[in-house]
Amino acid sequence: MKKTALALAMMCAAAVVRAADAPERPQDWRSVDPNNLVLIDTRYGQVAVELAPEFAPRHVERVRALIRAHFYDGLSFYRVVDGFVAQGGIGEGTASTKDHPKEAASLSQWPPLKAEFERSTGSDAAFTPLGNADLFAPEVGHVDGFPAGRDAKAGRMWMLHCPGTFAFARDNGADTATTEFYIVIGQAPRRLDRNLTAFGRVIDGMQYLQKLERGDPKVEIGVIQDVKRRDPILRMRLAADLPEKERPKFQVMRTDSASFAKEKETRKNPAPDFYVHTPPPVLDICGLAVPVRRLP
Amino acid sequence: MKKTALALAMMCAAAVVRAADAPERPQDWRSVDPNNLVLIDTRYGQVAVELAPEFAPRHVERVRALIRAHFYDGLSFYRVVDGFVAQGGIGEGTASTKDHPKEAASLSQWPPLKAEFERSTGSDAAFTPLGNADLFAPEVGHVDGFPAGRDAKAGRMWMLHCPGTFAFARDNGADTATTEFYIVIGQAPRRLDRNLTAFGRVIDGMQYLQKLERGDPKVEIGVIQDVKRRDPILRMRLAADLPEKERPKFQVMRTDSASFAKEKETRKNPAPDFYVHTPPPVLDICGLAVPVRRLP
Repeated sequence: MKKTALALAMMCAAAVVRAADAPERPQDWRSVDPNNLVLIDTRYGQVAVELAPEFAPRHVERVRALIRAHFYDGLSFYRVVDGFVAQGGIGEGTASTKDHPKEAASLSQWPPLKAEFERSTGSDAAFTPLGNADLFAPEVGHVDGFPAGRDAKAGRMWMLHCPGTFAFARDNGADTATTEFYIVIGQAPRRLDRNLTAFGRVIDGMQYLQKLERGDPKVEIGVIQDVKRRDPILRMRLAADLPEKERPKFQVMRTDSASFAKEKETRKNPAPDFYVHTPPPVLDICGLAVPVRRLP
Repeated sequence: MKKTALALAMMCAAAVVRAADAPERPQDWRSVDPNNLVLIDTRYGQVAVELAPEFAPRHVERVRALIRAHFYDGLSFYRVVDGFVAQGGIGEGTASTKDHPKEAASLSQWPPLKAEFERSTGSDAAFTPLGNADLFAPEVGHVDGFPAGRDAKAGRMWMLHCPGTFAFARDNGADTATTEFYIVIGQAPRRLDRNLTAFGRVIDGMQYLQKLERGDPKVEIGVIQDVKRRDPILRMRLAADLPEKERPKFQVMRTDSASFAKEKETRKNPAPDFYVHTPPPVLDICGLAVPVRRLP
């Protein structure tokens, strides 16, 4: 029997915990705080985003308030560029503003936010270095499950633009983000690091974002012109606002744990029975999935 | 009026030719040879793949023969791992083999291919260096529109695993590929470079691959267990086999042209009115789309 599929297994993103992994180390997992768990319902399925208040407290506070005001419910992913980003919200400056007069009228309630592109590498920062060079940052690693860049000399740290990164869009001015968000759906656009406020990541449901209707990047940079073709944000909720037993419960592998160190080693030194040309022992921070599991 | 969307324009993948680009330099584009143009019809839309015979003549010959034998028509994308690959064909070693007795019976017609993981950097090789370091290869650049790695000292060159890369799956042995293909649909899995025969890239329709039903990576590494949930390969054809006027016609920007050099410069030095933190002047080879245009 051919094992084509099995051979490919060894190349698979280490996003899942292999059944054979033993022993299970409960201390190497942390539960996602329902106050940081955003649930975005699309017509394809539910997307779960974990927010990182330690990276951008003002933006986290804002998105929670927007969700609780039901601002996003019924708006859409109005700009979706394949291989780049899915952008959701009202689409200020596009035709969609006039399709949502109520939300458009409410925009004055949401004044521009001061940028939170980076943060201090304070003593609270449990930065775990990846261990190899990176094209775009002096150093990369993880903070509590989130991919991060660090400039130790300058004492600064920031969230990276990897697939699944959740961030707020803005105008040309740094301090102009208000309500619109985007999620990276393609090859990591790392040039955006420290240029927009990234403050969360998708921990479940990326495949539903990938099903979203795309815009034509040649027309208004991907804004879907036919409003009816835009996929709606059916609703957006904070898990904390659901009755406890209705909340989806996720755990994320601690990125400062022995289990995650082992994940990285395994990826860096893959099974020699498949690899003819041993890859260099380096990792692409954005190609290394941090394991997530959903509890029943 | 807010310009959130417009601000994001500057970050958009440079996959499209901007209307403002002038002058048009016809000599900087080449037409895709219909003998190298594979059309994969899915229920979501048509995917166009350009083959690169100069990288893997035996594999190109094989896939053309398979297409002409209608081998793939009615088979499926039986293993789809979000953020990694969409794998199509008969799924040897999986339940799908028994669902396709005719194709399974024909497998003996398609003996294992000798690997073509890399090629010589012969004098015919128009390798255009990207111009900066890379984590996984001594040097990266483009050959005729395809992302490539090069080891000049060893005189070797190979196609990179970037989003859209088309390759053949194999067993553990190097020379075991027969009929199954995969297409990269997520962050570039560069560790696969030189370990599988990559010999084409999607030039149109990535968004349709992204809509494919996903498998659960925890179950048989992403093989979709319910055969009815698998998205079919409705048919796969070579453009050369269509009547001339029915062939879609694509042009690819020459990667050794002045226009492409300008694309790279623009991406490396993005608009300063948006970027607060100037990104380092480097490019991720797999994040740099080579422009493609479809002729009417």
